[in-house]
Amino acid sequence: MIINIPRNSDFSIHNIPFGIFSTQDRSKRVGIAIGDQILDLLEWSKAGYGEVDSSYFDQEVLNPLIKLGKKITNQLRSDVQDWLNQDASMYNKYSSLFVNQMDATMHLPVEIGDYTDFYSSIEHATNVGKMFRDPENALLPNWRHLPVGYHGRASSIVVSGTPIKRPFGQVFDSDNNTPKYQASEKLDFELEMGFIIGKENTLGNPISVDEAEEYIFGMVLFNDWSARDIQKWEYVPLGPFLGKNFASSMSPWVVTMEALEPYRVEAPKQEPQVLQYLQSDRSRNIDIKLEVELETSSGSKTTLCKSNFKYMYWDQAQQLAHHTVNGCNVRVGDLLASGTISGHTPESYGSMLEISWGGKKPITLLDGSTRSFIENGDTITMKAYSENNGVRVGFGEVLGNII
Amino acid sequence: MIINIPRNSDFSIHNIPFGIFSTQDRSKRVGIAIGDQILDLLEWSKAGYGEVDSSYFDQEVLNPLIKLGKKITNQLRSDVQDWLNQDASMYNKYSSLFVNQMDATMHLPVEIGDYTDFYSSIEHATNVGKMFRDPENALLPNWRHLPVGYHGRASSIVVSGTPIKRPFGQVFDSDNNTPKYQASEKLDFELEMGFIIGKENTLGNPISVDEAEEYIFGMVLFNDWSARDIQKWEYVPLGPFLGKNFASSMSPWVVTMEALEPYRVEAPKQEPQVLQYLQSDRSRNIDIKLEVELETSSGSKTTLCKSNFKYMYWDQAQQLAHHTVNGCNVRVGDLLASGTISGHTPESYGSMLEISWGGKKPITLLDGSTRSFIENGDTITMKAYSENNGVRVGFGEVLGNII
Repeated sequence: MIINIPRNSDFSIHNIPFGIFSTQDRSKRVGIAIGDQILDLLEWSKAGYGEVDSSYFDQEVLNPLIKLGKKITNQLRSDVQDWLNQDASMYNKYSSLFVNQMDATMHLPVEIGDYTDFYSSIEHATNVGKMFRDPENALLPNWRHLPVGYHGRASSIVVSGTPIKRPFGQVFDSDNNTPKYQASEKLDFELEMGFIIGKENTLGNPISVDEAEEYIFGMVLFNDWSARDIQKWEYVPLGPFLGKNFASSMSPWVVTMEALEPYRVEAPKQEPQVLQYLQSDRSRNIDIKLEVELETSSGSKTTLCKSNFKYMYWDQAQQLAHHTVNGCNVRVGDLLASGTISGHTPESYGSMLEISWGGKKPITLLDGSTRSFIENGDTITMKAYSENNGVRVGFGEVLGNII
Repeated sequence: MIINIPRNSDFSIHNIPFGIFSTQDRSKRVGIAIGDQILDLLEWSKAGYGEVDSSYFDQEVLNPLIKLGKKITNQLRSDVQDWLNQDASMYNKYSSLFVNQMDATMHLPVEIGDYTDFYSSIEHATNVGKMFRDPENALLPNWRHLPVGYHGRASSIVVSGTPIKRPFGQVFDSDNNTPKYQASEKLDFELEMGFIIGKENTLGNPISVDEAEEYIFGMVLFNDWSARDIQKWEYVPLGPFLGKNFASSMSPWVVTMEALEPYRVEAPKQEPQVLQYLQSDRSRNIDIKLEVELETSSGSKTTLCKSNFKYMYWDQAQQLAHHTVNGCNVRVGDLLASGTISGHTPESYGSMLEISWGGKKPITLLDGSTRSFIENGDTITMKAYSENNGVRVGFGEVLGNII
């Protein structure tokens, strides 16, 4: 290998994820994360490597590169892997093609035309249903028949590291039976993953569940910040709006579906059987280990939960087939997120809402302080990676500090 | 006037709306509608008129022009008005700057980053509440306290004239107590207007209700097609999704707020008083006459309703202030639509859902056929204009044929 890749790096030679970076002296461009370095694809291409024209790397977003199609981008990943497999002694010759990740600023990797958020974890939907509706009938009648989803806000999606301002808004004051304007007192994270569309359909032409994966370029880790008190008052009957659209945080690296292929696992059985247009190959969930950590302003870190993307009841092919069954068109760069990913046990719940059970069971952090929701100065960091047989492919982290 | 403007034209000298057009021999560019002609702003500018660089007119969307700001675009409208006021004898000299609207293809005028749909007609919300929830408590508790809204799909917004494919999807079959996959049997229109953002705020910085109108470039007429049976089964708890996102139709011409200024009227009184961040100048609703017509495949035309934008309970400044109160950012080209605009009487209801009262009161068309919802082959045409003292400013029409 031309560079040394730390053990347990998310960015092994098997990963080769794409992102947009800049440095003090270089404007935005396309890079690939490898170990703790970034391979500058613009310079690499200009040096004569690969078959993709260097103009595709001289971009502020990945969309033009992704639009070239999987055949091209997979060949590119393969060419990069071959090139990286040179002897370490060659590093000095090529050191100018690498940037230390510590020295780079990462940017939102794609221009997102539309952002859709699903609600595809049965454990999350059940927990929310128990808290807000009927504990005996926590899941609504439609939930097992279709992947419930809604449109979110694309403009306020920011890259990991962007500070998050606590939102103000209208909440219902039940003591005085009237709404009031205030800062949200129930700020929450939602542990999600999302996929980026790599190929577009045209309006009126659905994507079938069997062909859906051809349209998926790769995945990102995603924190769908939520203001539970604003959401609770506003969301009936048209769904979440200001409780969500103040910000969502995305990982800077997009991991391709091909890199995740070795981590495919069986999905949970769906009962009752779904309608034919949603019947998917249920061996194609993905084992992605997820973790959320809270760091207080004094620097004390506590792990809040450990979950796994493999718990998803509705898989990504089903989400995309359902989204387009009415003819809705998707465009390259669109983001379709999973919804909060919770597991069966409280240790695996993917939001403070569930972890503190709506604030009724505040948790104690390692420094002795307690939390029902997120406080100012707290930093939430999410991590995601797949690993087996010592081979690791990860997403790095998504972090956001509340100000 | 350099050209003859037909009496009752929506596109009087007082209007000067912007759009994107092409012809067989000219690619997309910016134009202004005047009478039954289009003034080709690219050629006009190249001929030395106006102060805006011609590159702003050599565009596929209006966004770059709009971004210049109201000061520039209002000066441009004024320069065009002055120029058009030349003597008719000059027409021969300048005829190449005009294109007959009949000979032009109109395109979606803006690139829409995010599309938000409100629910701001109290008559519409009350009608829907009566039908689907509780006739005695038709309005939900939050409705009079905030302009309820939700995010819609930007990718499937099409320009007037685009055929609309009847969507397939999942609906609930109450006879068999199970969902099924089929073509929607309750296809509907929604008579709406929308406004286009002309100036952006930055994430985390709300736009106050008093400054909101500075951020609004102009308005469009809008048909938010809806599949009521799909919507009914899917929309709980996260709101409308596939029942809406198969298509929405927009007028090709964007009418500036300045052109609509003479038609300002008093808004309905809001009770109870709204929170301070929503308290607006209630003299700034707009009198815009609205009309919807259904034409059957055999060519028989029936007026379905006549409504007015002045009925809106929540005004546009309130919508924008509410949308950004949590720090959400808006971008130039974003569309914020009103929601269905209904009046007090059945003749003014802005959707088939209300006109046929959920299908319980089918209407009879002039050719003797009946409709509860829209049939294949039907064309829905919406018209909108303001008029007083013989001065008219209109939007032309939005039409869509169901296939």
